[in-house]
Amino acid sequence: MPRLLASRDERELVSAQRWLAEQTSVDIAAELGRLKPELQAVAFRLLDKERALSVFEYLDPPHQADLLEALRDEHVGELFGSIAADDRAALLDEMPAKVASRLLRDLPQEDRRATSVLLGYPARSAGRAMLPVTVVLSSDSNREEALEKLQLRGEAFATVPVTDNSRRLIGMVNLADLVTAPAGTPVSDVLQSEKHRVYAHDDQEFAARLVQEADLLALPVVDEEDRLLGLLTVDDAMEILEDEETEDAYRSGGQEPLNEPYLTATVFTLARKRGLWLIVLIFAAFLTINVMEVFESTLEKVVVLSVFVPMIIGTGGNAGSQAASSVVRALAIDEVRPSDVFRVIWREVRVGFLLGVFLGAVIFPIVALLYYPQVAATISLAIVCICSWACIVGGMLPLVAKKLGVDPAVFSTPVVSTLVDATGLIIYFTIAGAIMAEQIAAAG
Amino acid sequence: MPRLLASRDERELVSAQRWLAEQTSVDIAAELGRLKPELQAVAFRLLDKERALSVFEYLDPPHQADLLEALRDEHVGELFGSIAADDRAALLDEMPAKVASRLLRDLPQEDRRATSVLLGYPARSAGRAMLPVTVVLSSDSNREEALEKLQLRGEAFATVPVTDNSRRLIGMVNLADLVTAPAGTPVSDVLQSEKHRVYAHDDQEFAARLVQEADLLALPVVDEEDRLLGLLTVDDAMEILEDEETEDAYRSGGQEPLNEPYLTATVFTLARKRGLWLIVLIFAAFLTINVMEVFESTLEKVVVLSVFVPMIIGTGGNAGSQAASSVVRALAIDEVRPSDVFRVIWREVRVGFLLGVFLGAVIFPIVALLYYPQVAATISLAIVCICSWACIVGGMLPLVAKKLGVDPAVFSTPVVSTLVDATGLIIYFTIAGAIMAEQIAAAG
Repeated sequence: MPRLLASRDERELVSAQRWLAEQTSVDIAAELGRLKPELQAVAFRLLDKERALSVFEYLDPPHQADLLEALRDEHVGELFGSIAADDRAALLDEMPAKVASRLLRDLPQEDRRATSVLLGYPARSAGRAMLPVTVVLSSDSNREEALEKLQLRGEAFATVPVTDNSRRLIGMVNLADLVTAPAGTPVSDVLQSEKHRVYAHDDQEFAARLVQEADLLALPVVDEEDRLLGLLTVDDAMEILEDEETEDAYRSGGQEPLNEPYLTATVFTLARKRGLWLIVLIFAAFLTINVMEVFESTLEKVVVLSVFVPMIIGTGGNAGSQAASSVVRALAIDEVRPSDVFRVIWREVRVGFLLGVFLGAVIFPIVALLYYPQVAATISLAIVCICSWACIVGGMLPLVAKKLGVDPAVFSTPVVSTLVDATGLIIYFTIAGAIMAEQIAAAG
Repeated sequence: MPRLLASRDERELVSAQRWLAEQTSVDIAAELGRLKPELQAVAFRLLDKERALSVFEYLDPPHQADLLEALRDEHVGELFGSIAADDRAALLDEMPAKVASRLLRDLPQEDRRATSVLLGYPARSAGRAMLPVTVVLSSDSNREEALEKLQLRGEAFATVPVTDNSRRLIGMVNLADLVTAPAGTPVSDVLQSEKHRVYAHDDQEFAARLVQEADLLALPVVDEEDRLLGLLTVDDAMEILEDEETEDAYRSGGQEPLNEPYLTATVFTLARKRGLWLIVLIFAAFLTINVMEVFESTLEKVVVLSVFVPMIIGTGGNAGSQAASSVVRALAIDEVRPSDVFRVIWREVRVGFLLGVFLGAVIFPIVALLYYPQVAATISLAIVCICSWACIVGGMLPLVAKKLGVDPAVFSTPVVSTLVDATGLIIYFTIAGAIMAEQIAAAG
């Protein structure tokens, strides 16, 4: 594909067009996301109009923005107008302010108003992500009246909100329940049994998680007076959760989230997102230098101790990151809450101790054979203590972070292992000093 | 809550019951998931029958299984019969074989058949996760005939499959499109514009990802002859993706996925899932011992070099894990494919070099002041080389894993940093040997 498009040869373009015609819009959107913006525009112009609109809808906001910039022609306004109001709000966030306001200005009045309302809610709020709804049902109508109203208005989603006369939310009706109900059934009889809703200022991740947990097709978004403002649809909820998962995945790798696709981000952007954490971590690592210096005379006397330093701190870091990743994930899916901190610590100290004893027992005979028993005892005992300690630290920090309102995923593997490194070395050298006191004295 | 239930005091139970009555089923299911199985059963018995069924539906399969075991009474068969066939198949996977076959035997014949069909497909296939459908529309019927058929059959979902006479899939119709269409519109006119479908043997994650990418409410699952078997609904797709994300999160923390909630898993289970990787990693860490031994004489002569070992390998590990986590995530959401390996390496080597130069430049003056310029030059240059190398390794390994059919998340932070540790040390000591040759010779 990229080769076909880059050639700009008439014949190659025709075969690219033929290839495109055979793909689904979703696949084309995925392929476009892997091309450079100039080539994206070339490929996009090969699509027929209807297809172009549907492909555009499937692109991520950052790609949509790139593409609109690369197109720079009469298509732009049309594409921008064709997508849903909530997608438009997300896209505007990605555009330079000048382009954004020009695009907004060129919209038909009604679309412009709907989009501006969404833009009035804070970024990452449920209000920003919702789809404004215009059609609602009244609870005192019956099945036939409701279906007729939906048909007349020509707008419906898989679940339809039911409100009172002042637009206060009463509940939601599954269209499927309405359709399959006997003739004349009142709308109030097919209401979903539980009334879920979020406020416009609620966090979008909280709302999306509720859509997932309660298996909803759409979640009503209301104002403080419980008046219906819009719906968070399940496809938007999935998108939000996917983005949150991506953020967590980046954070747990010790870097800031990228917010754009990996392959089209510039090398400089990638370096910037990572450099911040690397510099923090390297300064944290100066702690290990201090510890190593404090024990430098021990190291000079028993050089064999330094040989095990990478393994000792590596194991501590690994055990800590296992605990941290368990707890970060459990927090993300609400299995664990900050109030569980003592329960978590008690679990982790036992897990860490078990793991330490297991590893220590496996390592002991090997090290005893390669070196001598005192070294083996030092290493094994250090591993028991460091594993227990690392599991406590790794399990506790994400909970503390959550309590303090910081993203728990920040206490990711690199951060936890860097923190455990210095304390692990202190444990190691202290144990070595106790067990190998004789050797150290003899060497001195 | 746990306190109220554990007391078993009549009055406490009444206040627990009152508290339960105020919660949504989703919230109750979340609370139950945090209780011990015995207490789960106590709380569950406090719910009225209808509420109990809906709470049961919201529980994860492992919790459902625990609860059924704890209940051991006439409720069990009823609860088991009340959930959808696909949820039932997932639950059976969690039960001991004997209990499973007894439960299956007690089902009404039709439910038993539906469940057995699903169980015939391999675990983690789309066929196992689908909801069998019985109602389909014919493409030559019109809006009114279609609505009447759905009403008559009393079964519908937000999107309804359209098939020909031999049940071959023609496409899907959104119920909302059908309802809002003008009277008399043929079903074929409101078909979704693109026909997405998966085969029953396709991987369930692939199917769930398609539901998400294409914003579907339900994805048809077909056999090799394109005959409709069932639907993968969006709520099941979200569940599948959440489980996959959880697996990736665990793997990227260097442990096997837990497959059950963190708080209710036993300490021994937690230790087992982590111990496997820790033992592999500690053996891999023996490589670092070899490297340290090879350079032991250098270390004896210039002890200051050992002081920087934790920082050097920590930084290498961090840079590598950043690259790995970026690429693992990009692979998971199909932004990057194994064929992009050279593109990824070329990006990563530049990112790593940029980061190394940045870190090296920041560190140089500090180390030069604390020690002397040759040490600073060694450390800075080593960081440049190790960052570049770590980014290449971290970026490349997940792609190689994917190519080989291994879960790329296995090349997580702990694994990548352990692999980078030994090679990083070789780079470090080689550079030290070159730059500090004089000191080393003088000390010898």
